[in-house]
Amino acid sequence: MLAAFAMFPQFTALDFIGPYQVLSSMPGVEVVVCADAAGTVTDDNGLINLGVEHTFAEVTAPDVLVIPGGPGARDEANTHGPTVDWVNAVHATARWTTSVCTGALILGAAGILKDRPATTHWCFYDELAANGAIPTEQRVVMDGRIATAAGVSAGIDLALALVGALADPITAQAIQLGLEYDPQPPFDSGAPWKATPEVRDLVYGLMTQSSD
Amino acid sequence: MLAAFAMFPQFTALDFIGPYQVLSSMPGVEVVVCADAAGTVTDDNGLINLGVEHTFAEVTAPDVLVIPGGPGARDEANTHGPTVDWVNAVHATARWTTSVCTGALILGAAGILKDRPATTHWCFYDELAANGAIPTEQRVVMDGRIATAAGVSAGIDLALALVGALADPITAQAIQLGLEYDPQPPFDSGAPWKATPEVRDLVYGLMTQSSD
Repeated sequence: MLAAFAMFPQFTALDFIGPYQVLSSMPGVEVVVCADAAGTVTDDNGLINLGVEHTFAEVTAPDVLVIPGGPGARDEANTHGPTVDWVNAVHATARWTTSVCTGALILGAAGILKDRPATTHWCFYDELAANGAIPTEQRVVMDGRIATAAGVSAGIDLALALVGALADPITAQAIQLGLEYDPQPPFDSGAPWKATPEVRDLVYGLMTQSSD
Repeated sequence: MLAAFAMFPQFTALDFIGPYQVLSSMPGVEVVVCADAAGTVTDDNGLINLGVEHTFAEVTAPDVLVIPGGPGARDEANTHGPTVDWVNAVHATARWTTSVCTGALILGAAGILKDRPATTHWCFYDELAANGAIPTEQRVVMDGRIATAAGVSAGIDLALALVGALADPITAQAIQLGLEYDPQPPFDSGAPWKATPEVRDLVYGLMTQSSD
């Protein structure tokens, strides 16, 4: 089984690495990291320089595709960039087309979320709706063979759910234990309805201006 | 404030990227990724090729250092590799010396965990004890100015606690909300006492043989 991760400039690193760590631990899964062109792709902080060897053109039939988010995902969606074209090309034969955070905007731009429930980072529900998706306040939305995750860290939960669906719950539980994923956040402000209005307004302001 | 992440061959990607995503979101923090030599450092799956520009020799006074785990961390610890020497060199002036997963074995090899409570991936408590640490079944152990996290994903919780200590709880809560870190694992087997014996034995066998 081939799981392909799409890279583009200004991706958010944890959007990618969360599901990468889970799916690369699944027996029988081959992982490929690909981008429009081979070379170095840099994250949204300008600090992670990732060497990418495979191009979208080489990866024509992934069983699973994972589209991370980040400021670059909004750019890809808004400019109908190469990642959008690649989703269009490979979605038809994929078992699961998935996104993390604002990666959902790329799925939306590819036209595959129309009239479907989907999620994204909580700051970008309006942008998600622009292509006809039905924004849904869930951490992971699995609808047909499309799975979307909420912001950044939600890709870990998405990927464990995918392993449960692609393999079996025992395999998913073993991966969870291998990654010791027994989260104990020291604060409880991980969702907009849990945070104070002060924190929520601060984050909304920072996130929505960051790639304008 | 300078936060330095140490890289070595066969690191585990999420050990690094979890705290990286949190600390790089903290206002006033400059992040540097460094290794024994500049060049490409590859993760334990052979799939993440990270370009590293800075050497340990250049990073002489980080305020925070983060040592990820992975099979390569055990190798560094067992062979007293360059990462151990770097910890020895910079720990004295650091505000926080931290590890994720088997990164704690590197701190142990550097001799700074003697008679201290510390944690690591649950499969490696015995190896942690070999250098005099007191293995402690907590997700994050903060003792003096040393903080150690349990396996892989625990680095996210560690980093949020660090931000709370270095800045303030509001800043940590804002970062948590920005990363939408409101974990909802679809299974509940993230700790050895939560998993079935079957799953626990399977994972223990795989993890402890992986870098022997």
